[in-house]
Amino acid sequence: MRIAVFGTGTVGRALAGALAERGHEVTVGTRDPGETASRTGPDRMGRPPFSEWQAGHPEVGLADYAGAAGSAELVVNATSGAGSLPALGAAGAARLAGKVLVDVSNPLDFSQGMPPVLNPVNTDSLAERIQQAFPGARVVKTLNTMNAALMVDPGRLAGGDHSVFLSGDDAAAKDTVRDLLESFGHRDIIDLGDITSARGAEMWLPLWLRLYGVLGTADFNIKVVRGVE
Amino acid sequence: MRIAVFGTGTVGRALAGALAERGHEVTVGTRDPGETASRTGPDRMGRPPFSEWQAGHPEVGLADYAGAAGSAELVVNATSGAGSLPALGAAGAARLAGKVLVDVSNPLDFSQGMPPVLNPVNTDSLAERIQQAFPGARVVKTLNTMNAALMVDPGRLAGGDHSVFLSGDDAAAKDTVRDLLESFGHRDIIDLGDITSARGAEMWLPLWLRLYGVLGTADFNIKVVRGVE
Repeated sequence: MRIAVFGTGTVGRALAGALAERGHEVTVGTRDPGETASRTGPDRMGRPPFSEWQAGHPEVGLADYAGAAGSAELVVNATSGAGSLPALGAAGAARLAGKVLVDVSNPLDFSQGMPPVLNPVNTDSLAERIQQAFPGARVVKTLNTMNAALMVDPGRLAGGDHSVFLSGDDAAAKDTVRDLLESFGHRDIIDLGDITSARGAEMWLPLWLRLYGVLGTADFNIKVVRGVE
Repeated sequence: MRIAVFGTGTVGRALAGALAERGHEVTVGTRDPGETASRTGPDRMGRPPFSEWQAGHPEVGLADYAGAAGSAELVVNATSGAGSLPALGAAGAARLAGKVLVDVSNPLDFSQGMPPVLNPVNTDSLAERIQQAFPGARVVKTLNTMNAALMVDPGRLAGGDHSVFLSGDDAAAKDTVRDLLESFGHRDIIDLGDITSARGAEMWLPLWLRLYGVLGTADFNIKVVRGVE
């Protein structure tokens, strides 16, 4: 499949690399590819520059949002919460129409200090705002509940015995995303329902952030344990 | 220990019964004990009347909030989210001062229809509001993340191999609550930090409610899976 991955951070790199390894034709979308490619030092999160990552993944392309989305059959939003609507807007509604749009972002608002709060929250979600802004896109929320390493390699933790969620209004789009998740090794994929159920998946983040703090690692996830006889 | 359990619903009954079975001297607190005791039909949730439950638990007392809290060493808030501050207010700050106050409630707001939303949320939590309203109480948030049957009998699901959380500002109070949780069979008790971490535990509810819908049972919980080598 031709896939555009929006976002050059840890999550975008992990997803782009893993999708390319599975034979997909992947282009990373960014605001200004020339600027992204020309950076030589670590970014503000201390990550190596994108060019260094791309040198190890020569099969992955880099384009602006419109260019990446235009030729893609499926688009992954791995930008920041605040950057999501601008990035998708730059791609343009016409280039997203009819396509599966996998939203893995979290609407974290750092403007009030740490820990970040969610915005939107409770009666709305980022996934719903994206679906509303791009009604022709087939939005599926998933993977936002775990760190990037586990998104693409769930087997590194407890042999993959933990859970991931799907939210979206389009059943066929969710099937497509389920196949991608299975290709990464996810086994317990729980369909939460329509796109409004993304509120639940996004509102998990405050607990995730606290657990990250007390466990001292992001290498954890939740397993939904059921099966009372 | 002398324990007051505020609330006569499913959660209050489960906790009162389980604590009494473990040898604690338990009094259930309610707004109007005469009215509670005199009900003969099912309540609005379809539960048998409290008097029928109490007939099976003759060792558990019933009193008004002030009476139950006055003689208790530890108070459990198992009232509804909207009923919590009024119930604790009826008990009075003086009767809560210095005591461990275990808050198991969820601030679910049904006024906007189903599914309920949270109020407060995101930048505040019910647990924090309780702590702020009763600064002398030693508030510990716990158990709100699972159904009543699992609160008091975690072993009924996967042999107890799932997680429960603690939030609170008072380390000794959390130790007391940890002991109670262990007496119920909880083994993975995760201290999330101070009382503001209750935001995370409360904001788990929207995801819990969606899972309840799609799994068709409340007999589930989350296990925090960690241990990447």
